[in-house]
Amino acid sequence: MNAEIIAVGSELLLGQITNTNAQFLSQQLAEIGINVYYHTVVGDNGNRVLDAIKEAEKRADLLIFTGGLGPTKDDLTKEVIASHIGRPLVYNEEALKSIENYFIRTKRPMTPNNKKQALVMEESLVLPNDHGMAPGMMVKGENHCYILFPGPPREMQPMFTQYAKPALLDVLEKVEKIESRVLRFFGIGESALETEVEDLLLAQQNPTIAPLAGDGEVTLRITAKHESEETALQMIKEAEEKILRRVGDYFYGYNDTTIARELAERLKETSHTLAAAESLTGGLFQSEMTAVPGASTFFNGGIVCYSNQAKEKLVNVKKETLTSHGAISEECALELAENVRQLLDADFGISFTGVAGPDEAEGQPPGTVWIGLASKYKQPKAFKLDLAGSRAGIRKRSVKYACHYLLAELTEDK
Amino acid sequence: MNAEIIAVGSELLLGQITNTNAQFLSQQLAEIGINVYYHTVVGDNGNRVLDAIKEAEKRADLLIFTGGLGPTKDDLTKEVIASHIGRPLVYNEEALKSIENYFIRTKRPMTPNNKKQALVMEESLVLPNDHGMAPGMMVKGENHCYILFPGPPREMQPMFTQYAKPALLDVLEKVEKIESRVLRFFGIGESALETEVEDLLLAQQNPTIAPLAGDGEVTLRITAKHESEETALQMIKEAEEKILRRVGDYFYGYNDTTIARELAERLKETSHTLAAAESLTGGLFQSEMTAVPGASTFFNGGIVCYSNQAKEKLVNVKKETLTSHGAISEECALELAENVRQLLDADFGISFTGVAGPDEAEGQPPGTVWIGLASKYKQPKAFKLDLAGSRAGIRKRSVKYACHYLLAELTEDK
Repeated sequence: MNAEIIAVGSELLLGQITNTNAQFLSQQLAEIGINVYYHTVVGDNGNRVLDAIKEAEKRADLLIFTGGLGPTKDDLTKEVIASHIGRPLVYNEEALKSIENYFIRTKRPMTPNNKKQALVMEESLVLPNDHGMAPGMMVKGENHCYILFPGPPREMQPMFTQYAKPALLDVLEKVEKIESRVLRFFGIGESALETEVEDLLLAQQNPTIAPLAGDGEVTLRITAKHESEETALQMIKEAEEKILRRVGDYFYGYNDTTIARELAERLKETSHTLAAAESLTGGLFQSEMTAVPGASTFFNGGIVCYSNQAKEKLVNVKKETLTSHGAISEECALELAENVRQLLDADFGISFTGVAGPDEAEGQPPGTVWIGLASKYKQPKAFKLDLAGSRAGIRKRSVKYACHYLLAELTEDK
Repeated sequence: MNAEIIAVGSELLLGQITNTNAQFLSQQLAEIGINVYYHTVVGDNGNRVLDAIKEAEKRADLLIFTGGLGPTKDDLTKEVIASHIGRPLVYNEEALKSIENYFIRTKRPMTPNNKKQALVMEESLVLPNDHGMAPGMMVKGENHCYILFPGPPREMQPMFTQYAKPALLDVLEKVEKIESRVLRFFGIGESALETEVEDLLLAQQNPTIAPLAGDGEVTLRITAKHESEETALQMIKEAEEKILRRVGDYFYGYNDTTIARELAERLKETSHTLAAAESLTGGLFQSEMTAVPGASTFFNGGIVCYSNQAKEKLVNVKKETLTSHGAISEECALELAENVRQLLDADFGISFTGVAGPDEAEGQPPGTVWIGLASKYKQPKAFKLDLAGSRAGIRKRSVKYACHYLLAELTEDK
């Protein structure tokens, strides 16, 4: 069964809002094994909505609409579909009641155009709106199934989960279970990773393996289909093992996690504490660590030593180090990491010093970054990065590299 | 001139990411008077991409593509278009050089599949990629114009603004100039702001005034059309003056700026320096300050005192303050702000202490925030916030409020 998601609303075409409904519905449909081949966005224009419907009917069995169920003249989704498939619109008593109650509750006068929202197509399954006024509906036509949702995500999402999803599962008699898992990698480029697993990508049928790159990271999504969920999960597990045997060194987590969150969790598990001294990243690393609830259990605090004055005064970097080696140096990174670790009496100390750009500093180009890693168990070490890209990108990736190095350290320690 | 935006990428159809590129491009095109009637999303499948192109050619003059320009086998956008309009793909020397340099700079091995990214259509205008590897391109076919962008927003957005937008404006040779300006407000709610300027919103024809809310901020976009650019700008100026006479106290900047960047600029202009001590925000404020190039001229540094130990040891908060008033108190906020200001010998000191959540702390609910503001010119003061929302939202808005308070302070000082 193939679906197309059609969003109706000129505000989308004007760029006033993003089509997050399409993402939500796509995720949900993938989970129950319905393929989505197209998303379409069309404005509040009857003829263009009709054209979009005709086009979608050529390429999908299930047409899912979001938006255009409201009270105004612009809202014409159900009117266009009704006349297209020749289904009269009739008042739905429950919907009408709940709309009237809504106005009584909010002590506002009900204007006549609100009654329009209670109109549904004859012989349709009405999807109640628990978070707004306009109900949704599911209609079986001759060769297609049509599902209509209101536009606001806070109304559409619960309506899908509560009412539409169960109805869809009924329609699909024997559901082929689709399971998927995303593997996240850092420290290896997309093309380098793809080269490592190229034969697996080529051989793939079921499970499929899809690479995706972004923000200096690469992910592989493994998706398996089978009637038995257990078997699907087993297929994923086997593919995952093959992949990790080759590029496991760069793997850091599953699905929607971030490398910062993984580091935080690892520090919690191993009951280690951390302190940081940041120059070019200016607090970005610490703000990501403290974004994790319960950060106080592993993060002792730190210093943003953007100026040399701060490096000397707050982190006790030797004047001699700054004069003879400069702030952007291995020596400075090592002192920052070890000193901040001791200052805050932490197990590990992380430091960042370098050139975020756009201008060079101390005669070194943007992207030159030293990361210091001090540990109460061993000698401090420092890593040099040469990063490309914008100031923001250099700062972000520096933070991710630091997480990557400390994660590796914590794994060794095991 | 009508455009259709076609996003190519199975990750969109699987719901892994949202199509924010379509929103960005729609906004930009609206500003220069190009109508967008459809958005389409199609997967990494040659035949379906071709079908989408043929369909779009029936209904649009300008086809804009995002995604599918990368190094992997999945990336096939330009290959499909090239064979569809019969344009050979040729290596672009500049692009090839910049890709090779990228790998030299980042000291990573260049795998062969990366060379593919330097292929462009013959006789196309190449759009350089200043933030990544794959260049974009603009191609005039027989009856249509095709523009290809890479998928990652941080590569696509500057490529559009820098290179594609000027090229489009040439093609348009528009008689009527469309100018627009966004006014940004903080510290006032959307409905409150709308009430203040309601009559202006209703009266509007040309220029138009469009409100938009998000992330605790409100913006008003003023758009004017006129043959003379000068007149259009004058119309905007007059509308702006009317608006600011009413809600100017909440206005902080134009277009794509942020309140943090405005604060940074104001500190530069007035040659003032700043230091910060952050508890619940954990470095977020400082990372935003240091995100601004040349931050060293106004930002002396600061401390992330997430733990009470750090508050005492690094910012010299009196033990007595923490025991008798607690860390989440006016007294603690005042000491943090004044002490960090003195420690780093800055003109101003900002402090943050409070409960980001999800759990309460010191018996106070999430969203309880104290912001301390110390100045070398006057007595330190503290502001209390009661914020709602997620941990991330509470941290973000705390940072914006701090910028708002310090900006007001700097304006008084004038």
